[in-house]
Amino acid sequence: MSDVKGYAATSELSGLAPFSFQRRTPRADDVSIDILYCGVCHTDIHFAENDWGRTNYPVVPGHEIIGRVTAVGNDVNQFTVGELVGVGCMVDSCRSCPSCEQGLEQYCREGMTPTYNGEDRIDRLRTYGGYSERIVVSERFVVRVPDKLDPAAAAPILCAGITTYSPLKHFGVGKGHKVGVLGMGGLGHMGVKFARALGAEVTIFTRSEAKVAEAKKQGADHVIISTDPEQMAAATESFDFLLDTIPVHHDLNPYLSTLKVNGSHILVGMIEPIEPTVHSRNLIGKRRILTGSLIGGMPETQEVLDFCAEHDISCDIEMLDIHNINEAYERMKKGDVKYRFVIDMKSLKSA
Amino acid sequence: MSDVKGYAATSELSGLAPFSFQRRTPRADDVSIDILYCGVCHTDIHFAENDWGRTNYPVVPGHEIIGRVTAVGNDVNQFTVGELVGVGCMVDSCRSCPSCEQGLEQYCREGMTPTYNGEDRIDRLRTYGGYSERIVVSERFVVRVPDKLDPAAAAPILCAGITTYSPLKHFGVGKGHKVGVLGMGGLGHMGVKFARALGAEVTIFTRSEAKVAEAKKQGADHVIISTDPEQMAAATESFDFLLDTIPVHHDLNPYLSTLKVNGSHILVGMIEPIEPTVHSRNLIGKRRILTGSLIGGMPETQEVLDFCAEHDISCDIEMLDIHNINEAYERMKKGDVKYRFVIDMKSLKSA
Repeated sequence: MSDVKGYAATSELSGLAPFSFQRRTPRADDVSIDILYCGVCHTDIHFAENDWGRTNYPVVPGHEIIGRVTAVGNDVNQFTVGELVGVGCMVDSCRSCPSCEQGLEQYCREGMTPTYNGEDRIDRLRTYGGYSERIVVSERFVVRVPDKLDPAAAAPILCAGITTYSPLKHFGVGKGHKVGVLGMGGLGHMGVKFARALGAEVTIFTRSEAKVAEAKKQGADHVIISTDPEQMAAATESFDFLLDTIPVHHDLNPYLSTLKVNGSHILVGMIEPIEPTVHSRNLIGKRRILTGSLIGGMPETQEVLDFCAEHDISCDIEMLDIHNINEAYERMKKGDVKYRFVIDMKSLKSA
Repeated sequence: MSDVKGYAATSELSGLAPFSFQRRTPRADDVSIDILYCGVCHTDIHFAENDWGRTNYPVVPGHEIIGRVTAVGNDVNQFTVGELVGVGCMVDSCRSCPSCEQGLEQYCREGMTPTYNGEDRIDRLRTYGGYSERIVVSERFVVRVPDKLDPAAAAPILCAGITTYSPLKHFGVGKGHKVGVLGMGGLGHMGVKFARALGAEVTIFTRSEAKVAEAKKQGADHVIISTDPEQMAAATESFDFLLDTIPVHHDLNPYLSTLKVNGSHILVGMIEPIEPTVHSRNLIGKRRILTGSLIGGMPETQEVLDFCAEHDISCDIEMLDIHNINEAYERMKKGDVKYRFVIDMKSLKSA
């Protein structure tokens, strides 16, 4: 074990503060990583503030990690010292259930081990995330960052990116499809980039006229003001897919109506504890699909990084020093970030 | 036009009673049919009693019609006089929208013309259903009844049959799949037969121990008592498909949990006006699909009749005289029919 500096929330604190903890002694299949950048996901706030009632304090958030390999165990054969690598939302899974065998570790029957606020499957120690100097992760859960990508802007691909890329690929979005994207945040803006790169025609739904220019800047071919009944009616039965990144409760029925026969409404934002209510006629009457998707498996996480390099896609980011993290959380709660904060981990050394 | 005897509900009556009305003069593409049998669908009750608030009285219910061709128009080339034919839930559609062009007339963008309580697209006259002596239908909406089928037992295939067959085929149910069927009524028992014929292993979910023997008799490989938390927990992530025929509000979440990763919960019973509430985590967490399906298109309605002939499948029916229809409705409301009433239309002549 070795001492590591990080930023954590504790139950006594309202916010994140410097925190020293131990990383495990690397095992034979482990990759030791010096963290360079870590994206700030809305989930980090939920855990820091215990919104879901399952935070084990102290918690070191962060699951959009980019770093450099400093050591590898004897059994590691995919990575070498000095390589630029990434770690996303998971650091382990059972590895033997049908989902794991298909490389869909995020749907592991036993539940995957999250990068933070989880429990290591071997030593039962708590997992700590990427707001820290270093991390030690089993090689199966490490991905290679292509040279072409800007390392900082690549960080959010590990969560915001894979979360939107995976369902678009799985459900077969491609040329000739019309895709609607709901929500204009970190996930939504990545969804627009991926859907366009896959050949689809993309519409952003937004609640206000004031955001139309921004939506166009994000690359949308069209914009629909979702609060305008006329625009919504005109969109009836016009979309093949809806990628729904809205992370709070919203009525799905008006959006379902904009799907064609056999169209799919894909949720990627958990909207618990409030339950959406869905009119069954909106599904039955047009054989529509309501579904959801959770991040992506490890092979697909590597795929999305390679896809981003090939298509010159990166996340729009705002760089952040770690000592400004609490302020960043406050801004994120107001939606005041375009589109993802990324912590420059050099700032931790001077914090 | 010609006078026809039928049974109708009027706004003044609590129940169905003899009713004389006119059938349209056959057009060039029309098939005139003498009705031999008509199945009694739960939807008939909803319309007779205006449960959905959109009944135009008087209404002649019935959309599971088997009869013999008595005349054909000059443009009819699929049917000849004397043939045994069927008519299901639709008698017309726009015929030019993307759904109609794919033979998915049930999802017609303009809305299909229902066999009763609808309005003819040409003369704007009301459509009357199968509780009557005769019907006149455009040939596109008429299907051929294979010789091998018992005509009376074939009637419910036109609604209960196609409604369960279509989603099983569309979503790709086959060998190696585990299918759960919810609801043990007219639709449910047909769903079990089709799923088995398609090669799947079939489980019936029922609320009470008392129905286990009946479920086995229906052909289920397994039975799960849905009110037993232990049995439901043991079924976690075990099904590829759920065919949900329950026509009243029920909590979908416990059922969703029994679906594997990528599993599909298919609604075929409209459960309005009450809305189901679905936990988004039950979809997102395992990439599950909630969807629905409405009857089937005309090519598939012919296909299901041929499939039934090939696999020796028919509906379990109880024959009924038309003057007992009101009593039959009361029994259906109590679930007291195995599994479908079929009216012998000869009884109309003596009624």
